[in-house]
Amino acid sequence: MSDTPHFRQLTVIGVGLIGGSLARALRTAKVVDKIVGCGRDEENLKKALELGVIDEYHPEVSDAVRGADLVVVAVPLGVMDGVFAAIIPALEDDAIVTDVGSAKESVLLIARQAFAERLPCFVPGHPIAGTERSGVEASIETLFADHSVILTPIAETDKSSLKRVHAMWQAAGATTIELDAVHHDEVLAATSHLPHLLAYSLVNTLVDMDDSEEIFKFAAGGFRDFTRIASSNPEMWRDICLANRESILKVLMVYMRNLESLRDMLVSNNSAEIRTVFDKSKAARDRHLTDGVQGRE
Amino acid sequence: MSDTPHFRQLTVIGVGLIGGSLARALRTAKVVDKIVGCGRDEENLKKALELGVIDEYHPEVSDAVRGADLVVVAVPLGVMDGVFAAIIPALEDDAIVTDVGSAKESVLLIARQAFAERLPCFVPGHPIAGTERSGVEASIETLFADHSVILTPIAETDKSSLKRVHAMWQAAGATTIELDAVHHDEVLAATSHLPHLLAYSLVNTLVDMDDSEEIFKFAAGGFRDFTRIASSNPEMWRDICLANRESILKVLMVYMRNLESLRDMLVSNNSAEIRTVFDKSKAARDRHLTDGVQGRE
Repeated sequence: MSDTPHFRQLTVIGVGLIGGSLARALRTAKVVDKIVGCGRDEENLKKALELGVIDEYHPEVSDAVRGADLVVVAVPLGVMDGVFAAIIPALEDDAIVTDVGSAKESVLLIARQAFAERLPCFVPGHPIAGTERSGVEASIETLFADHSVILTPIAETDKSSLKRVHAMWQAAGATTIELDAVHHDEVLAATSHLPHLLAYSLVNTLVDMDDSEEIFKFAAGGFRDFTRIASSNPEMWRDICLANRESILKVLMVYMRNLESLRDMLVSNNSAEIRTVFDKSKAARDRHLTDGVQGRE
Repeated sequence: MSDTPHFRQLTVIGVGLIGGSLARALRTAKVVDKIVGCGRDEENLKKALELGVIDEYHPEVSDAVRGADLVVVAVPLGVMDGVFAAIIPALEDDAIVTDVGSAKESVLLIARQAFAERLPCFVPGHPIAGTERSGVEASIETLFADHSVILTPIAETDKSSLKRVHAMWQAAGATTIELDAVHHDEVLAATSHLPHLLAYSLVNTLVDMDDSEEIFKFAAGGFRDFTRIASSNPEMWRDICLANRESILKVLMVYMRNLESLRDMLVSNNSAEIRTVFDKSKAARDRHLTDGVQGRE
């Protein structure tokens, strides 16, 4: 556990579920003097101001970043490029920049380009937390409590900035860990990105069925839980899929082969093999995951 | 809403999550004088007795059924055949038999054979409720509250027996509805059986990966919810898959084609089409399902 950090001005670019929840948590932890918001949707920024999540806002990135010693970029991956470019010219000398993107290799690629000689101040991060909802109204100060945040620093990353970002997330209640960006992307492709693809695809399959209305009428809790992530922000998830395309495709291919093999077992009425698959799966899930403890992602 | 029914003896064959929960609910509703349990696992029956879920038990079906005016068969589909055959010789003249099987065409097929001229007393049913846990210790009296129970009567079904089974489920807190068995099986293949297959297959895919331990370590709430149903009883789900094979294969084929098409969009970096799929899926789920109201299945 690091010492409690202190920042004079936090600027959150993208005051949505993640950015808003982090602002709330850091305010409660009293580690920031002032919180400035920035984003594409002025209505959302007004709401954030009303809710007391931020103290002021500026629609322009350069205005918002001025004065900040901590800048958190919490926008969809697809627009991060433009945000990084807009940050640099206005960035204070002592500023640290971090992000919350779900695919780290792609973020590093654009960060190297955009930050150039300022690269050391950039600490790539990804909180393993969230809900299927979005916007500042969905933000809660406890979103990161007892959740993991993965930081993926590179050789250039300034050690003391890295330390301060660890401390910042810990002040928000999270546990921090460092991983290599490539490894992060592989792990997240399997545990988060692929499940989202599968859930979106299942709901779509059902929407197109003849008795679609009736099907949703009889959907019970299992279906509800299984497809909850299909209510997630489509822009954000489109961006994640494209940004982590290669890792996702790799695990998707393996998944599709496994599903084909399960289909073949069903076609051939292979009771014993189906049972083996289900037994193995139940055993693994029961071993690794206990329900009800961790929050949603 | 029917009048409150009354039964002198309920015999539950298979005192697990569903059978046990129904026994608890009917006892609380005071619609049964005596509850008799029966099952393959004597330890489970002893536990049911200790917990007060049943008043007595008999390991033999014929002993358990004697005296009952209501017999509920709550065993996995794969052993229902043998249970039906054992019930018939011991069945009282005024007895009603119902089941809770998740695939109704297959149950009707074996019921026609087993019940022969007693077929009118058999009312096929399926409560759309459950959790991923099993055994009598997982049973709760509120499992069916505000959940749907689908009954799939046939031409031969005795009208007054059907009415009493409706009333029995309503006394347990459920809403009852009648559907044709074929239609039931198609709807459930889409909303329940396919999601279980997908979840089992996902967990299996991850178990076989090189960094499997780490993958499960970083699995957050989305993954947890998505794969919860992969902790369900493997014997029961193997039986359901085989019993409803044709409907499941039909919807699985469509799902696999949709997943292939999503993969192709990813391969070709087709941002617009991916966005369209995700938007459509989110809109449908948000329109049809509101979270947190209904229980688990």
